[in-house]
Amino acid sequence: MLFRFGLKFALSNKDGQLVELSSLLGRYVVLYFYPKAGTPGCTQEALAFQKHLARLRELGAEVVGVSPDRPQTLQRFSAKHGLEFLLLSDADGVLAEAYGVRNGRRVERSTFLLDRAGIVRWAWRRVLVPGHVEEVLATVEALAQADREVNGLIQARRAKRALRPDPIAQEDIQRLIEAAHLAPSCFNNQPWRFVVVQGEKLEAVKRALPGGNYWALKSPAIVAVASHPDLDCRLSDNRDYFLFDCGMAVGFLMVQATQMGLVAHPIAGYDPIAVKEALGIPKDYVLITLVVLGWPGDPGELSDKHRELELGPRVRKPLSAVLGWNSLPKEGT
Amino acid sequence: MLFRFGLKFALSNKDGQLVELSSLLGRYVVLYFYPKAGTPGCTQEALAFQKHLARLRELGAEVVGVSPDRPQTLQRFSAKHGLEFLLLSDADGVLAEAYGVRNGRRVERSTFLLDRAGIVRWAWRRVLVPGHVEEVLATVEALAQADREVNGLIQARRAKRALRPDPIAQEDIQRLIEAAHLAPSCFNNQPWRFVVVQGEKLEAVKRALPGGNYWALKSPAIVAVASHPDLDCRLSDNRDYFLFDCGMAVGFLMVQATQMGLVAHPIAGYDPIAVKEALGIPKDYVLITLVVLGWPGDPGELSDKHRELELGPRVRKPLSAVLGWNSLPKEGT
Repeated sequence: MLFRFGLKFALSNKDGQLVELSSLLGRYVVLYFYPKAGTPGCTQEALAFQKHLARLRELGAEVVGVSPDRPQTLQRFSAKHGLEFLLLSDADGVLAEAYGVRNGRRVERSTFLLDRAGIVRWAWRRVLVPGHVEEVLATVEALAQADREVNGLIQARRAKRALRPDPIAQEDIQRLIEAAHLAPSCFNNQPWRFVVVQGEKLEAVKRALPGGNYWALKSPAIVAVASHPDLDCRLSDNRDYFLFDCGMAVGFLMVQATQMGLVAHPIAGYDPIAVKEALGIPKDYVLITLVVLGWPGDPGELSDKHRELELGPRVRKPLSAVLGWNSLPKEGT
Repeated sequence: MLFRFGLKFALSNKDGQLVELSSLLGRYVVLYFYPKAGTPGCTQEALAFQKHLARLRELGAEVVGVSPDRPQTLQRFSAKHGLEFLLLSDADGVLAEAYGVRNGRRVERSTFLLDRAGIVRWAWRRVLVPGHVEEVLATVEALAQADREVNGLIQARRAKRALRPDPIAQEDIQRLIEAAHLAPSCFNNQPWRFVVVQGEKLEAVKRALPGGNYWALKSPAIVAVASHPDLDCRLSDNRDYFLFDCGMAVGFLMVQATQMGLVAHPIAGYDPIAVKEALGIPKDYVLITLVVLGWPGDPGELSDKHRELELGPRVRKPLSAVLGWNSLPKEGT
C-alpha cells in the first residue's frame, strides 16, 4: 500500500547526489519506473517525457525517472538524449519495492502521478510506451483542473459539538500542534503558545465553561491558545499581529484535525481569568480560544438548537459581502 | 478519470430518498459497486461488509453499496440480511459510468476507497469476493495511519518570494476567497473583508511597498485583508476576535492556494494608510495583511538573502517552545 510512501525517500541522481523526494512537495510529481536506461523502450519513453516536459512543467509537474541503473549510466543516458528531468538511481530497488513494482531484480514499467500534497492520485501499471506519456499529460491536466475546487478538508470541517469521550493519543495531539506550528507569522515570530489540557487540569478548565458549552464537557483534551502582543510585530495603524498569526496557526490545526477525523472546535465561551489561573498563563497574555478536541459523536445527545446546527447546512454570508474587487464590499449588503 | 467525480453525486437510497454523497465528506468512504442485489456473490459481499461494519466505522469509514437495482429491491435485500449500511440505487448507471465500471447494462464488481477529503485513494477492479472485505479493512487501517502525518499541503506551503508575473484567473482567485470564507468565527460573525487588487489599483498598492518587498512587484494580484473590531466579538480580558478570525480564514486561503500551485504570501511591510486610501477602506479598519499572490518563479531573480531563505530549510522554534502539556511553555526555552 502506497499511503505511507509517497515521497519519503532519498535516492542518488545522475551526479551521485542524494535527492530527497520530499523536496518535490507542492508540485505534481510524475514518478516513472523503467527497467534499464539505454534500451529501446526506455529510450522511447524518456524521449516522450522530454518532449512534453515544458507543458508538464507549465502545469506544475516535475518528471522523475527511476531505474535500477547506477548514476554513471544515468549520466550517459541523460547526456546522450538531452534529458532535462530528474533521473534517480534505485539500485537496491527500495523505491520500486515500496511502490510495489519490483519484480525480482527487474522493475515493472509503471508510472505514478502524485498530487501537490504528495498523495498518489493515479497509477499506470505494466505500461506500454506508445501513447503513454500523452495519457499522463492528459491526466495531469485533469488533476490540475480538479485541484481548482475548494479543498475537501476545508469543505468537510464543521464546528461540530457532538463528541465521543474516547481519549486521543498524545502523538495525535502533538501532530495537530506540529501542523499549527508550520503557519507563517510576522517576521517568523511564531507568537502562538499552545497548552494541551488533559486530566485534572482539564476538569478545572471545564469548570470555567458556561452552561451553553455543556457539549464540551465530553472532550478528552482541550488546546488553550494564548499569546502576548509583545511576542509579535506591533506595527503602525493598530496592526498588532499576535492574534492574526495565532489564527493562521489554528486554521492549519483545524485542517490537520479534519484529516485525522477529529473535531477541533475553537470556542470563545469560557472564563479566561479562571482558565489562565488554572494553567499558569500570566495575566497579561490573551487567551484567545480554547480548541475543544474530540472524536465525532452522536448528535442525538445535543440540545435541539445545537442538533439543528450540527445537522443543518452551513451558514455563510454571500461571498459578495466579504469579497470586493478593487474596493471594500459595502457593509450590510 | 476520477478526479472530478468523487462525491459529486446524489442517488436514491432504499427508501427512495435522495442522498448527496458529498454529505459523507469528512469520513472515509468505501464505495462498492455490485451487479445485482440478492445474487449469491453480492449477498456474500454485503454480508462481509456488514460483518466488519463496526470496525470500519470505528476507523471513521462509511460503507456505501451501489448497484443498478431499484430502491424496492434494495429495501428487500437490506431487510433480509440485516444490512445497516447505505445502499444506493444507480439505475441509470450514472455513478458507475463516472467511476469507469459500467459495462453496458452491467456493472463491474469494484470497490473504491475515498479519503476524508473525498479523494479516491484506492481502487479494486474486477473484485473476487472471498477475502476482499478483509483487504479493504486493512487498507482503511493503513490510510487512517497515514493520515496521522502532517497534511502535505501544510508541509508544502512556504512563504515563497520568487514569482512569475503570469495572470491568475478571476475564478481561481475567487476560489481562494471561498476557501477562506469557510473558516469559523466567533458567533459566526465572519469579520473578514477581502479586497482583491488588480490593474491600476494594484499599481497604487505596489507603490505603498518598501524596497524590501521588491519581489512582490511581480505579483499579478494582491488580496488585502481588512476588518474592524466591531465586526466580531469583543469579550472580556482583551479578547477582540476580529484579527484572530481573519487569521483562520487566511490559513484556509493558504492551504487552498498551495493545492492550486499558487504562492500566497501574507506580508506586513506596506504603508497601511496609503493602501486603505487607494482601496477605499475606512480609516478605522485594520488592514492586517496583504496576501501577495503569484505563480512560483525563478529564485535566481531574488536578492541573495531572499534566495537563501527561499531555498533553505524552514526555520521554526523547537515544538517545546510553543507547546506545553497542562502549562504554558517557558519563554526563551
